[in-house]
Order: sequence, then structure tokens, then C-alpha cells
Amino acid sequence: MIFITRREHFNAAHRLFREDFSDAKNLEIFGKCSNPNWHGHNYELFVTVCGAVNPQTGFVIDLKVLGEIITEHIIEKLDHKNINLEVDFMQGKLASAENIAIGIWNQLQPVIAEHEGTLYCVKLCETENNYVEYYGEK
Amino acid sequence: MIFITRREHFNAAHRLFREDFSDAKNLEIFGKCSNPNWHGHNYELFVTVCGAVNPQTGFVIDLKVLGEIITEHIIEKLDHKNINLEVDFMQGKLASAENIAIGIWNQLQPVIAEHEGTLYCVKLCETENNYVEYYGEK
Amino acid sequence: MIFITRREHFNAAHRLFREDFSDAKNLEIFGKCSNPNWHGHNYELFVTVCGAVNPQTGFVIDLKVLGEIITEHIIEKLDHKNINLEVDFMQGKLASAENIAIGIWNQLQPVIAEHEGTLYCVKLCETENNYVEYYGEK
Amino acid sequence: MIFITRREHFNAAHRLFREDFSDAKNLEIFGKCSNPNWHGHNYELFVTVCGAVNPQTGFVIDLKVLGEIITEHIIEKLDHKNINLEVDFMQGKLASAENIAIGIWNQLQPVIAEHEGTLYCVKLCETENNYVEYYGEK
Amino acid sequence: MIFITRREHFNAAHRLFREDFSDAKNLEIFGKCSNPNWHGHNYELFVTVCGAVNPQTGFVIDLKVLGEIITEHIIEKLDHKNINLEVDFMQGKLASAENIAIGIWNQLQPVIAEHEGTLYCVKLCETENNYVEYYGEK
Amino acid sequence: MIFITRREHFNAAHRLFREDFSDAKNLEIFGKCSNPNWHGHNYELFVTVCGAVNPQTGFVIDLKVLGEIITEHIIEKLDHKNINLEVDFMQGKLASAENIAIGIWNQLQPVIAEHEGTLYCVKLCETENNYVEYYGEK
Repeated sequence: MIFITRREHFNAAHRLFREDFSDAKNLEIFGKCSNPNWHGHNYELFVTVCGAVNPQTGFVIDLKVLGEIITEHIIEKLDHKNINLEVDFMQGKLASAENIAIGIWNQLQPVIAEHEGTLYCVKLCETENNYVEYYGEK
Repeated sequence: MIFITRREHFNAAHRLFREDFSDAKNLEIFGKCSNPNWHGHNYELFVTVCGAVNPQTGFVIDLKVLGEIITEHIIEKLDHKNINLEVDFMQGKLASAENIAIGIWNQLQPVIAEHEGTLYCVKLCETENNYVEYYGEK
Repeated sequence: MIFITRREHFNAAHRLFREDFSDAKNLEIFGKCSNPNWHGHNYELFVTVCGAVNPQTGFVIDLKVLGEIITEHIIEKLDHKNINLEVDFMQGKLASAENIAIGIWNQLQPVIAEHEGTLYCVKLCETENNYVEYYGEK
Repeated sequence: MIFITRREHFNAAHRLFREDFSDAKNLEIFGKCSNPNWHGHNYELFVTVCGAVNPQTGFVIDLKVLGEIITEHIIEKLDHKNINLEVDFMQGKLASAENIAIGIWNQLQPVIAEHEGTLYCVKLCETENNYVEYYGEK
Repeated sequence: MIFITRREHFNAAHRLFREDFSDAKNLEIFGKCSNPNWHGHNYELFVTVCGAVNPQTGFVIDLKVLGEIITEHIIEKLDHKNINLEVDFMQGKLASAENIAIGIWNQLQPVIAEHEGTLYCVKLCETENNYVEYYGEK
Repeated sequence: MIFITRREHFNAAHRLFREDFSDAKNLEIFGKCSNPNWHGHNYELFVTVCGAVNPQTGFVIDLKVLGEIITEHIIEKLDHKNINLEVDFMQGKLASAENIAIGIWNQLQPVIAEHEGTLYCVKLCETENNYVEYYGEK
């Protein structure tokens, strides 16, 4: 068993708020992250896959294949997008780093399951000072 | 003459577009950066001040003072904001990294001029792969 | 279960030595780290909290709250301080990265326990070439 | 139990290919990484050792000792070398990041076992966008 | 006048040696960098272009265009290649970072001259501990 | 003319204060940096040398030689030291980043002048958020 990780990026806008809260209440709970005019981040995404090394290739999973999966299922949906308004798998959810990471896991897990290796971790860095890690439902 | 630099951050939303262009033309010229629903970045700002070393303090400029100037005049205006909609000194301007850097210079230059040292450079990093540097009108 | 991490910093002086050793023996065991005139580091601290996502906020723990806890209980005690001489929870201990990380865990664990989430890991980077990680007594 | 990590570097050439494949098949499977004229990387190596803190020293393992072990058994064999042609413990193996990490583990594990602490993880970064982690046969 | 920089990467093999030197003399002058079996690096390339801001676009130069120029004229020639054996503009030259940077400048300067902006600087990082900067013949 | 830069490190303790000031006045002017019990940093030093490329070697200056000069004249004097108490060229000076950078320049300039290339810049990073650059008396 060995673990391999690929880093990708996306730049996106979001805000933290609940429709059932007033603007004042959103500001109280979510602070400046609730700005109705949005703000944004350079998100950094680390996807870790684990498995045995394939003796034919020396790979757990071909990084080119893993990169294509992440690009098609995640980056094309999130990059230069508004996470609250435009990302199908985030509809109806608070756009916190926690929920985005869980959403990314749920997108990637079944696709990677069709290839060599098993999705092990989704790490999402929102700024250089905070990140979340999700290992699936455990 | 010596140069001292302080790094600060802000997270903001923006888009690149011209009101006098159609959405199709904006997409042609600005690509995915023209997304009408905005996207965003973790902007990294480096402000360089030059001058002689004050023999009383060993400083070109007190970094605490420089940090307060940048926070008051730049970070509070840009952090967790929409650059196109909410930043006074960017009204009517294309929100490119070039124009944001020039705008930041124009905000900081007269304020720093009242202190020790002279504003020398504003460097603005939009992603880890691109940044602009502005040294004033020369 | 999801994991969220916040990064903080402190700049501090320390030395590695035992009072019951001679200077020569301290030099033999601890090398240049035993310098009686001290040396110092920019310590980088990563605090990881785990828990369920609160469906009301999308958070494991409010990062603003986590930041305030770390600032009050750790940064204010360590930043711009002499770890051997001035930090209450390090009195009588060797100021190795290992012991500082354990000390930080012991400070933070009971405080975080009063909030959402559970302290999972304290990671302390002393230089870009070495760091320690502590997960509590296990 | 606490974990301590030391970072080291080596710059090396390699290629991914199988002698029992044609150049065309190697190109198909390994892409540009199969270039018969080699390419190379700045490899970044993180070695993590775990154990109890020695109350005499405050250390899990003396980082100077750990650094010397890594230098003697890994860096001197890999730095400024051709991994396919010149590294004894990689003979007959595909020079993938996975296999290099496993090879490094197998070199380091018995040596570290003679000291304080136990080898816990070998992390090998091939580029800023991909890395592997190996925790031994588990 | 403003300056904009784009970062790109390439992974390549090289060695430092002169054909008119013996292996012993190459080893004396170039050390382990003269290894006849090659070694390699993750080269990081920063290309800086200067000019006026185009009021139509807010750009000195369209970064997408700049990226395509660098990819076509530099990255495709250097990435996953042997710099000594396979790069046309390095034939007959010592593959030092200095000479690679000058070679990159000479490739890029006439191409960028056909677009908005002027090539100002080529910065080439060979490792995290050394880099060269070339500003053309001045 | 081309520029080459080498990065080195040192970890040191210091404080900002004037003997002719009271502790209260030092605290007022220098804040927590005046702590009588010292604090410290991981200083990062970038030394830039400029010159023509030597056609025999492809080098402005042999980086191994430059590294040895910096180690002998700077790192051995500053690393794991107290800058105020133990560094000969800082005696009687305020240990600000500005003055340390100027002191380093004055140490290195005459030594490098005996080799190929000319000292062009000393850049000293005190934290990830501030650095100074000195180009000599100009």
C-alpha cells in the first residue's frame, strides 16, 4: 500500500450565508465572509489515492489519468466560477471549505473507483493559513 | 539607500469585462475571467519602501507603521470585497492585476510620503503563476 | 468526520541545554543549539481540529474562534519571547520542538474541548527542514 | 508517541520505461517520461520517525544523527546521479516515484531501527504537483 | 510602464562538462554536476514583460498569449528533455543556468517583440537555493 | 551581464533596543522586538553577484565558491548566535534587518571582489512577511 497525491488549482468566488438568515445575522455568524457581493480564493486541491504498486508500470495510478479525472470532474466545474451559483454539486449547501471538500470527494470517489487505486483523501487549502482534509465517511 | 518590503494579503472577487462589450465579446477577449458571476483570488501584496536608515532606530520605515498604512488604505478596502463593485479607487476601471497595482500605488504613495522613506514598488501576485510590479510613473 | 487546520506563527528565542550538564557536555549533546547566548526561530504552528460539520454553519469549528484560542493561549505566550525563560508551560522542560509541541497540545486541548470539534494534531515547524507532529497521548 | 520529520534534497536524472517494451510502447504507457535521453527532477524527501521523547534530551531522535543517516544511505547514492543506471537499490526496478520511495524506505528502515525512534513515513516529492508517501508494508 | 511576470516549469536532464576536458578535469571544475550519466532539475522559469497598460484591456500583454509563446518556444523544447543533447538553441554551449537563461531570452525576445510589451527579464531557478536573472545585452 | 543568486540560512537571536533608552522607551519605539530576554528568527539570505559569463565554465561565479564565501564570512558568524552579543561586525549597531543586511554586504563585498563577478545585492528575509534589500552605497 502506497499513497500518491496530485495538486490542482481553481480560482473561484463564493460567500458564506444562509437564505433563512437576515443580512445582519449572516454578518454576525459568518463575518466578512458573508459579503453579498462575494469574495474569492485561489483554492489549492490535493487529491490522494492509495493502492498497491502495479508491477507493470510502477504506478498506483497513472498521474496523467488522475489529472484528467480531477480536471473533468472538479476543475472544469469550479475554476473561474461562483461556487454558490454555478456548481451543480454545491447547490443548496453552505459553501464552506468543509462542504466543498466533501462535495469534491463525492464527485471523485466513484470515478476513481473505476480505475486502479482508491480515493484516500481530499485536502482543500482556502488560504495559506487554513485547509480542510476529508477521508470519506468513517 | 536601502529597500524594505512588507507582505500583506487580501481575498477578493472580480471579473474582467467592459460594459461597452457584449458578453460574447467579453468572453472572446477576457476568456473565463469575464464570467458574469465573478471569480476570485487570494491576492498577495508586496509593498517596497526605500530610503536611508534612520540612525536612531535602524529603520527605513517602522514596519508596524507601514503595516498600519497598508491595512487602513488597502486591505480594509479590498479584503473580502468585490473589486469591481465595492472598491472606490477601482470604479470605472478594468479590474486587471495591472490596474489594481496602479490603484494601490496611487493610494499608498501620498500617505507614505508623509513618513520616513519613499514608496518604491507595489508588487501584486494574483496566482502563484503571475504577478505585476509597478514603480510609479517613470 | 472532517479535519480543519489553522496556521499561526511565532518568533522566539531558545536554547537546548540541561542545567545538570556542564557547558562542554551541553555542547557535546546539543551542539550549536546549546549556545548560552540563545538563538531563535520563526516557528510555524499548524493546529488541526476534527469533528462533524455543523449543518447550521458548514463548519467543524469557526476558524475565527480557533484563531482567537490559539492567539490567546499560545501566540501571546510565545511570540517574541524566550521559550526557556518566559513561557510558563515550558518551565523546567528542555525547549526541544518535541516538548514545545506537547506543551502547546496540553494548553490547547482543554480549551478546544469546550467548543465544537476535538483537537487532533499540533504540528510545529522549527525550520523549513524539520518539524514535529503530536496527536496526544495514544 | 511523537513524530519528527527531516527534509532533504537530491537532484537526479531518470526515465520511465521497460526494457521488454518497444520505444513506441514505452511512449504510449509512460509518455514524455520515457524519453530515452533522460529527464530529471529536484526531488524533495521527507523522512518521519516516531517514538517516545527521550527525557534526557527532549528528542525522539537527534536530528543531526537522522540527517547523517539520510545523507550516507540515500543522498550520497541519489544526488546528481542517474537513478536508472547508478543507484544500487533501484537496479531492475521501474524508476517511478512510488518505487523510489519504497527503495528509500528499505534502505533507511534497518539503519534507523538501530537508533532511537522507528521509521514511520517516507514522503518523496517529484514536482510541486505530485508526491508519494510510503509507511512500510502494512 | 508596468511589469508583468508569468511562471512556467520544465523538468530536464543536463550535465556540465567540456568535450575538450578529460573526465578528471571536468570533475575538478564542475564537480558532481559533470556526472557523465546526467542529473536533472525541476526548472522554474519567470518571464517578465514590460510596457504600458493597454486601456482597452487593462493588460500589458495578454497572459494567455504570453503563456502560449513560452510553451511553444521554450517549454516544448526543454520539458522532459536532455538539455545537452536535444535542445537546438543550446547546441555547442555549456548547459549552465546562465547559458540556459540567455538561450531562453534569445528565443523569446524576437517573438514577444511582435506583440504588446517588451521582454524585460528571464529568471531561471535551478534549485530552491540558486537562480539566475538575465535582462538582455546591456 | 547576468545575475546569479545563492540562498543561505541562519537561525539567530536578537533584540532591538538602544542602551541610551530606558526599557519603557525601548518598548515604546521597538515594541515586543525590544524584549530584554531576546527573540529570534530563521533568517533567509539571498546573495546576488553579477558579471559576464566566463566562456570557459559558463559561470558568472562558481556557486560552490560563492557558497563557501558566504558560509565562512557570514553563516559561521551568525548561525545559532546572538546577533547583538556575538557578531563582530554588528557590535555597537542596532540589530535591525536593515543594519544586518548592510553589515553582511560590507563583509562580503571585498571578498567577492577577489573572485569573478561583483556583489550586486544582499537580500535578507526576517519573516515571510518582511525583507530588506541592499545594493551598496549608491
